[in-house]
Amino acid sequence: MTTKRIPPDERRVAGNGLLDRRLLLGGGLGSVAALAARPATAREELAVEPWMQEVGSPFVGYGQPSKFEDKVARVATTAPGTTGTGASRVPLHRLDGTITPNGLHFERHHSGIPEIDPAKHRLLIHGLVKRPLVFTLEALDRYPMESRIAFIECGGNSGALYQKDPAQLGVQALHGLVSGSEWTGVRLATLLDEARVDPEAQWILAEGADAASMSRSVPLAKAMDDAMLALYQNGERLRPSNGYPMRLLLPGYEGNMQVKWLRRIKLTETPAMTKDETSKYTISLPNGKALQFVFPIEAKSVITHPSPGLALNGPGLYEISGLAWSGYGQITKVELSADGGKSWAPAALQQPVLSKALTRFRMPWRWNGGPAVLQSRATDASGYIQPTRAHLIAERGARTIYHYNAIASWAVAESGEVTHVYA
Amino acid sequence: MTTKRIPPDERRVAGNGLLDRRLLLGGGLGSVAALAARPATAREELAVEPWMQEVGSPFVGYGQPSKFEDKVARVATTAPGTTGTGASRVPLHRLDGTITPNGLHFERHHSGIPEIDPAKHRLLIHGLVKRPLVFTLEALDRYPMESRIAFIECGGNSGALYQKDPAQLGVQALHGLVSGSEWTGVRLATLLDEARVDPEAQWILAEGADAASMSRSVPLAKAMDDAMLALYQNGERLRPSNGYPMRLLLPGYEGNMQVKWLRRIKLTETPAMTKDETSKYTISLPNGKALQFVFPIEAKSVITHPSPGLALNGPGLYEISGLAWSGYGQITKVELSADGGKSWAPAALQQPVLSKALTRFRMPWRWNGGPAVLQSRATDASGYIQPTRAHLIAERGARTIYHYNAIASWAVAESGEVTHVYA
Repeated sequence: MTTKRIPPDERRVAGNGLLDRRLLLGGGLGSVAALAARPATAREELAVEPWMQEVGSPFVGYGQPSKFEDKVARVATTAPGTTGTGASRVPLHRLDGTITPNGLHFERHHSGIPEIDPAKHRLLIHGLVKRPLVFTLEALDRYPMESRIAFIECGGNSGALYQKDPAQLGVQALHGLVSGSEWTGVRLATLLDEARVDPEAQWILAEGADAASMSRSVPLAKAMDDAMLALYQNGERLRPSNGYPMRLLLPGYEGNMQVKWLRRIKLTETPAMTKDETSKYTISLPNGKALQFVFPIEAKSVITHPSPGLALNGPGLYEISGLAWSGYGQITKVELSADGGKSWAPAALQQPVLSKALTRFRMPWRWNGGPAVLQSRATDASGYIQPTRAHLIAERGARTIYHYNAIASWAVAESGEVTHVYA
Repeated sequence: MTTKRIPPDERRVAGNGLLDRRLLLGGGLGSVAALAARPATAREELAVEPWMQEVGSPFVGYGQPSKFEDKVARVATTAPGTTGTGASRVPLHRLDGTITPNGLHFERHHSGIPEIDPAKHRLLIHGLVKRPLVFTLEALDRYPMESRIAFIECGGNSGALYQKDPAQLGVQALHGLVSGSEWTGVRLATLLDEARVDPEAQWILAEGADAASMSRSVPLAKAMDDAMLALYQNGERLRPSNGYPMRLLLPGYEGNMQVKWLRRIKLTETPAMTKDETSKYTISLPNGKALQFVFPIEAKSVITHPSPGLALNGPGLYEISGLAWSGYGQITKVELSADGGKSWAPAALQQPVLSKALTRFRMPWRWNGGPAVLQSRATDASGYIQPTRAHLIAERGARTIYHYNAIASWAVAESGEVTHVYA
């Protein structure tokens, strides 16, 4: 195999074909010979396709994706013998941008999706408060609201990467328990203030109206900081699978705490020690002990294009693109490597970069047709750098499935096939 | 009728109950007596509703809204005797935030929605170029992409407000031809650079693959500035009703120019004078002449809550909220009035405020139960201030339906009913 000639004006920034991200801006790429388009003749005309020869379909009240996109769907894994216990994952390799459409937001249910009548649903705030309160949805609609774009990631996302050997799966199955949305609702602090919290209260217990009564304890400091009672998701009312008619939003915290179908907030002195904060969502260490109450999601990134299932169609220019996020604030840098971590260069970050939100990164890459190992490494506003897998496991062991945030690797073979590897 | 006592710590900022927007932040509202919640007894428990007593529904690949939200739908008006010629409008009064979910994005079709096979669709760039090019979707997927949140507004939105009397309709029917999305695709400049545009080219002709061959001329300067060949909408592939598999995005320009189902871009010296830029989408003036090529959308705002159909349920605290946008850049200020324009105060703008994107504004309002006329007035980064209706019509007359951007007014009656008025 011969390596293709690389035009001299394509400034390489790291090994194995990573190119200057400034080529993304302005006309830099226009001077690169032969991208992916086919030259046309001067008088060439396009075929008049059948859909130009007949009137198209009429209006509908609520639209759906094209039938040609029916493979763009979540994939669910459910516990045996149950109908709604498990998780469904986002087809990250078939999406782009930073917003996850509501129909594809990841799901993690503990007893299926309740069909809640919003007129009958109530939210109770009680416990260590001077004025216990009950809210209807109609009452909440009168409160001041705010919107924020935030990611939610399941604490168990990417858990398969703790396994000894790299699972032969793609980005959806491995990393698809993360989504980004614009959430709109009432600041939880507004409602707690109205209930007049007692000084001895240090925690809240949040309980859902599903059959599992999913419950988690949240520090009061977080509840009073940026927590939201979310009522809208990407402009419309929450989807049933995301907590309709209301859920807790705790920007940056693991998804399980952001209780869906929220019906009750109880102010308490101590955490309630529910099953999902004792037997689950704790990190079992090699010494037999467990880390409990690991709330924020650590900085993380994953390459979505290319990734397994998206084979490269011959040498030439491609874009490497993916998502980065951190529960500790903004993403400040994402570095890419095409040689398995030997050399790195910073990717372009799509602006605006928002705190505790998905950040899309991009870099042009000229694949020379030889083997490559693609990796991304995120840094967040706290200065924390996404660790290698070896480093994460050396520190934490591999007896858990939670909070896996190490660098992920995709190998590109000479055939163009992309596979999951440890590197 | 007696006016309710207004607590002294509720700083009023303009007449008829408009309150300091800083009350939205922190615990300011917590000290306001009796919002909308109902006090509970110390030992009160919520009813265990039926949906908590049975396992919920299982996972699906692509989710849908709750059945209780079936009224949240677009409403279409179609030309008589046609199946897909007309427009459908967004239920702005039932949404919040700034993103419009893809299923509810407004539509304006000239010959229905074509069902395009993406594997067969082609984009041709030709005319005054050195290298005519044909692009498949697969080829475009290899190009560097970018994302941006942008509004699209039909040039005919709010056209009914040119009529002599205020139409007795709500915000959906009057102003529902505007939407906001995160769009992702390839900068048009990248593709035009690759085709090597001839120096004499000053315009592009953009043509759609619908049965109407919808076509518009766009200045080359705009095409080389921030124009995008959009491939994704809010994370997923464009919806068929929004141009699947590709559309032109011209941030800030009237929607009709942002040609859907884009199949051809021809570089030309002069505009092509298509029917949609001559017989339509021109502004007929009182003197019989017409303004042609009025491209950017002027600064505009509209209150979505309260609005007709959302009656107020008794005196007390409410949030006034709505959307503002400008084709000339960022919204820098939105002022609100509750007394028909006699006094004004600035609303809070949801951050981040993005150029040529929908901006959500909010302000707390204590309705005293008396008559009120609610208005919003936007200012953009160019310094332009949204005009009154009288001012707009004095300047432009009322023989057109296009680019109506004057201040809109909702009257609140003592009954709590909200209606459309001119004020």
